Amino acid sequence: MAGYSSGEQPDAQDVIKLNTNENPYPAAPGVAEALAGFDVSSLRRYPPATALDFRNIIANTHGTVAEQIIATRGGDELLRLVITTFVEPGQPITITDPTYSLYPVLSQIHDCPNLIVPLLDDWSLPADFASKANAAQSPLTFLVNPGAPHGKLLPVSTVLEVAEELNGLLLVDEAYVDFVDPDKGYDLLPHINDYPNLILLRTLSKGYSLAGLRLGYGIAQQDLITPMLNKTRDSYNLDAITQKLGVAAIEHRDYAAETWIKVRAERKRLALELTARNFELIPSQTNFLLVTPPADLAAADLYQALKQNGILVRYFDLPRLTNKLRISIGTPDENNQLLRQLDKQLPK
Amino acid sequence: MAGYSSGEQPDAQDVIKLNTNENPYPAAPGVAEALAGFDVSSLRRYPPATALDFRNIIANTHGTVAEQIIATRGGDELLRLVITTFVEPGQPITITDPTYSLYPVLSQIHDCPNLIVPLLDDWSLPADFASKANAAQSPLTFLVNPGAPHGKLLPVSTVLEVAEELNGLLLVDEAYVDFVDPDKGYDLLPHINDYPNLILLRTLSKGYSLAGLRLGYGIAQQDLITPMLNKTRDSYNLDAITQKLGVAAIEHRDYAAETWIKVRAERKRLALELTARNFELIPSQTNFLLVTPPADLAAADLYQALKQNGILVRYFDLPRLTNKLRISIGTPDENNQLLRQLDKQLPK
Repeated sequence: MAGYSSGEQPDAQDVIKLNTNENPYPAAPGVAEALAGFDVSSLRRYPPATALDFRNIIANTHGTVAEQIIATRGGDELLRLVITTFVEPGQPITITDPTYSLYPVLSQIHDCPNLIVPLLDDWSLPADFASKANAAQSPLTFLVNPGAPHGKLLPVSTVLEVAEELNGLLLVDEAYVDFVDPDKGYDLLPHINDYPNLILLRTLSKGYSLAGLRLGYGIAQQDLITPMLNKTRDSYNLDAITQKLGVAAIEHRDYAAETWIKVRAERKRLALELTARNFELIPSQTNFLLVTPPADLAAADLYQALKQNGILVRYFDLPRLTNKLRISIGTPDENNQLLRQLDKQLPK
Repeated sequence: MAGYSSGEQPDAQDVIKLNTNENPYPAAPGVAEALAGFDVSSLRRYPPATALDFRNIIANTHGTVAEQIIATRGGDELLRLVITTFVEPGQPITITDPTYSLYPVLSQIHDCPNLIVPLLDDWSLPADFASKANAAQSPLTFLVNPGAPHGKLLPVSTVLEVAEELNGLLLVDEAYVDFVDPDKGYDLLPHINDYPNLILLRTLSKGYSLAGLRLGYGIAQQDLITPMLNKTRDSYNLDAITQKLGVAAIEHRDYAAETWIKVRAERKRLALELTARNFELIPSQTNFLLVTPPADLAAADLYQALKQNGILVRYFDLPRLTNKLRISIGTPDENNQLLRQLDKQLPK
C-alpha cells in the first residue's frame, strides 16, 4: 500500500506555497509571547496528560465542558483514534469521492475497506449517502465540511439529516470551518448534544496558523470522548509547549479571526479574477479554490509552468480531478503573483 | 479494560517528585537558546514530515544513517507503531513479569494477548524466555533494559542470545540506557546490523531532561524502519518546535552527560544509605531504585507517610511488588530530604 502523500514541502524559502492550504499569515503575537515565556527547565517533567487547560479553554469557547473535548496532535491523530476506538478491522469506513486523501490511507492501515460514495457533479452529497452506509453496516463515516478538495459547504440541515439517518458514527472534519462566511450561519456545535453519533474535528493548523505545531481537537458527547481520552490515546500525546501555545492561540482568537476575514476577502477576489480569465470554479468556503483551466490549457501543464516560476499549487492526478488545480489562498501579493504567472500562460 | 496509569503528577511545585523517573536536572542551556530563537511565524507551515534533521544528528551520534532511525513522540509512539506495523490482532506479544506497565495496556488496545514470562527471583531472564515466545508463535517481544521497575541490566551477550533465538521481533526499550555505568560496556548499537529482528528504543525524556517534550526514536535495520516511517506513522507526528529542540539537545549532549554522572553518583550514595538502614535492594543501572523496607515497615504505609510529608515515590500494588517502593534518584538535596523522612519512619 502507498502511504499518505501530502503536497510538496520545499526547503526553499522564496517559493510561493499555494499547495497545502496553510494560512498565509503568522500566528498571533500572543503565541510568540507564550513561547518566549516558556521555561525549558519545566520540560524535565512529564506534560499534563490530558491537556486539561487547553480543553478547558476550548470548552469555554464552544460553550461546552472539557469532558466533551479531546485534544490531539493535529486532526490526524483524532482520525486514527476514532478508527482504532470504534471500528474493528474488516469493517467498512464510508467516505465520499473525492475527499481528504488521508481517510483511505488511514482506513487501509487499520485493515478497513472503504465504502466509497461518489459525490454528485456539483460536489454535493447524493440523497442515498447514509442509506448506502447503513446497508454496508459501516460503523464510521468521514465527511469533510466545508469539503476538500472542492471547498463546497454542506448546510447544517444536510449534515444533521445524515447524522440522524446513519446507524454508525459520523465524523465531520471541520478543518476549514474558520474560513466559512459567517452569513452562512454554519454551526454544528449547538447540535452535538442531540446527536450521540456525531464527532466534530477541529484543528489549529489552518485557522490559527499553527500547522507546524500539530494541535487539533474533537468535540462529541462524553460517551464518545471518554474511551479515546482514557484508553486508546497515547498516554502523553501532547507535549507541554504545544499545550501552552494552544491556550495562547485560543486566548488570542480575535487575532486569528482577522486573518480569516482577510483570507475570505482574497478568496472572493481571486475567484472573480480567475472567472474573468475563463477558469471554472464553484464557490468555496475554505481557504482554497478548486479550478478548471480554460479549454486550451491543461491543468497538468499549468501546474508545471507555475512550479517552474516558483509558485506551487496542488495537482491531483485522480479520475475526477484530472484537469483541475487546487489553489490555496495566499496574501494579496502572493495571489497577484499567481495571476501574473497565469496571464503569461494564457493564450493571447 | 483499564488505561495506562502513570505515577501521580501533582500540580503543587513544592512536592519532591521521586515517582516518575524524571531527570532531576534541567535540560541544557542550549535547548533554551534554541527555543528562544524559534520563529513562531514559521509554525504556519507544516513541519518537516520525517524529522530528517533530528534523524541525521541521531544517526551521526550513533554511527549509523537516517534510514535506520525513526523519530517518535516519546518512546510510547514507537511501541504503538511496532505493534500496529508488525503484529496482527490476536497474535501474542511476549513480555516479562514485572515489566513496564504500558506494554500490556498497548497490547490490549490492539487486541493482542500477552505471553507473560515471569522473571527469576533476582529479576534476571529465565533461560527459556525466547523458546517460550517461539512456542507461542509470538511475533514481537518487549524487553526493557536496563529493566523496569527493578533497574537490573542484562548484559549485551544475553540480549543478543535472545535476539538470535527469537523467531519474532525483539524491541529492547533502552529508556534508561544513559544512566548505565560506562564501565559495564553495555552497547547494543554496534550489533544492529547483525540482527534483522532487533529494534532499539531510545528517548530524550530521561537522559536529556525532556519528558515534557515527547521525543524518542527507534533504531533498527532499514527494512524494519521504512514501513513505520512511511506508512503507519501519523503523517506529521512531530511538531516543528520539538524537532528543533531535539537537535539542540543532541548537539549539547555533553551537558546531558554531566547529569548522568551526577545521577549515577547519587544512585550509588542513596543505595548505600538505604542499605545502611536495612532496606533491601539490588544494583540498579537506571535512575531509580526498587527497594524493600526493613521488616517492621510496610511499603504501602511508608509510601503514604512520605506522601503526607511532600515526597512522592512509586508504590505498585502488584503481586511481585507488593512490599516494594520504586524511588527515582533526585538531586542530593532531594535525596537527603527523603532520607530524613525515612529516618522519622524507622523504628528507633
